Amino acid sequence: MLSIEEYKTAFLQHIEKIFTPKEPIHLYEPIQYILNLGGKRIRPLLTLIATDIFGKDYCKALNAATAIEVFHNFSLIHDDIMDNASLRRGKPTVHQKWDTNVGILSGDAMLIIAYKLLEDYPSEIFQELVKTLSETALKVCEGQQMDMDFEKLQEVSIEAYMQMISYKTSVLIGAALQMGSIISETTKENQMNMYNFGLNLGIAFQLQDDYLDTFGDASFGKKIGGDIIENKKTILYLKSLALSNEKQREELLRAYALNEVDNKIARVREIFQITNADKAVRQLIENYTQKALMILEKITIGDDKREYLRTFALQLMDRKI
Amino acid sequence: MLSIEEYKTAFLQHIEKIFTPKEPIHLYEPIQYILNLGGKRIRPLLTLIATDIFGKDYCKALNAATAIEVFHNFSLIHDDIMDNASLRRGKPTVHQKWDTNVGILSGDAMLIIAYKLLEDYPSEIFQELVKTLSETALKVCEGQQMDMDFEKLQEVSIEAYMQMISYKTSVLIGAALQMGSIISETTKENQMNMYNFGLNLGIAFQLQDDYLDTFGDASFGKKIGGDIIENKKTILYLKSLALSNEKQREELLRAYALNEVDNKIARVREIFQITNADKAVRQLIENYTQKALMILEKITIGDDKREYLRTFALQLMDRKI
Repeated sequence: MLSIEEYKTAFLQHIEKIFTPKEPIHLYEPIQYILNLGGKRIRPLLTLIATDIFGKDYCKALNAATAIEVFHNFSLIHDDIMDNASLRRGKPTVHQKWDTNVGILSGDAMLIIAYKLLEDYPSEIFQELVKTLSETALKVCEGQQMDMDFEKLQEVSIEAYMQMISYKTSVLIGAALQMGSIISETTKENQMNMYNFGLNLGIAFQLQDDYLDTFGDASFGKKIGGDIIENKKTILYLKSLALSNEKQREELLRAYALNEVDNKIARVREIFQITNADKAVRQLIENYTQKALMILEKITIGDDKREYLRTFALQLMDRKI
Repeated sequence: MLSIEEYKTAFLQHIEKIFTPKEPIHLYEPIQYILNLGGKRIRPLLTLIATDIFGKDYCKALNAATAIEVFHNFSLIHDDIMDNASLRRGKPTVHQKWDTNVGILSGDAMLIIAYKLLEDYPSEIFQELVKTLSETALKVCEGQQMDMDFEKLQEVSIEAYMQMISYKTSVLIGAALQMGSIISETTKENQMNMYNFGLNLGIAFQLQDDYLDTFGDASFGKKIGGDIIENKKTILYLKSLALSNEKQREELLRAYALNEVDNKIARVREIFQITNADKAVRQLIENYTQKALMILEKITIGDDKREYLRTFALQLMDRKI
């Protein structure tokens, strides 16, 4: 096994080799642009690690890892158009830097390129990889649609919210590990356990993202309280509503309707705490993290490798990756 | 072999069976909507015919034919957003009926569903089909980008224009036939000849589309002169420029700059005729049609089947399909 940094270097060298300037430039330049915006590259790293962990050369997984990252960035470009976002990792989004048409079309091309990156795998592995990518990709679309639908709803059930975040973000973490496992030709059972390990870890990570947006410190890297200002129905908000008595419920709805930023954030945080939504969400994060780690126990690998994945998971949750 | 109408009925029954209402409805309803807008279904028919012509049961090609049609309709949804089109086959476009976000996301889902429709083929055939779909799909995106780029250019070479229409529309006609041939497990040579037959026929068809937009009669179904009003750089325009002397060139540029509709169409048509661009384009259409029919001769099938494809091609060019 390599260190996380070494896998990352190998991955970055690989995408630099693959994505060179091509015509028509308005189709291909945005692809290079977004792939070079940086980021933690968690998904492709997981693919490389999964292949390595079952004893196959991680280099065999470089194309699949790239497919996962290209797919992820396709979804970012299109989501940024739909969410009207002007910044991505502190830089202009693709549709902002060019225009919406460029964003739509270069995104489409990236989705196709994700499939193309799998072409050189032997046909049976290829088929498994493509099926995994398609199933995941469709869920990501469904999750994005649910997310947009929820914005227009008065109330969303916690169950529906969990499905939305699971589809929109967590299935791809699972798929990244599953694809690496498929390439390693390990058992179907290991493949599914790797998927479920990633899925649950991804859910924990996403819930924590909601939590830190409200209760994080400056090290989180995003402006604290952003979700509250945008009236987002996060897990904290939904849990708080579920745990509220009638009076608290009214107060929360009233506080969410406020326009005055600082007062609003402080007031909503307070209600989240009074209703114990903060504790409930911390517990939920812990539950999903533990579930992921329990699934990890079932995977038939050496203890040193299990420890590698365990450390990766815990560092991810501690935001140290 | 069945009649064209019989293949079409089988295809329509197949898509009716596959595309049933699903959640989230804003993702799946637009897919059913656009697939039910009608159309000639030329591409999926070609896939079914190609499989049948090499002696395999055309029912085996129904999923691949659906993949081709779904891919085609994905590209229509996204193109309609990019072109700001409000009508498609006389009905509101998807982004018009719902909104742009719904158009982007349901289009994305369709692209993924096109790949998913290939999943049940045996892995080697699956790999060939997916590679064909991806290669074609990427060219379609490149063609669309070239088309948008050309709108902003003063001049476009005829060579570049031919590549654009070939990528944007003709490669998919070729791929529809190729995919049917792959499923039939005929020789690679037959597969490539079927592709090239479709490619050249597709180019001839697209050039004829340009021609009829200016010189067609009411039976063409579109408003005559639309391309001229929109200042489109069609093959007639580019050929006319290429064949013009300096005075004619100036007149054409001046006529294209006119705002007064009836006068403009009449004036431009006249210049196209004076410069013999109309004849040159008719010759070009004939050349590509003949090229397609010559390639057809090389395909190793019985003469009755060759005649079937030949009749299909000629009826298509006579706009009788």
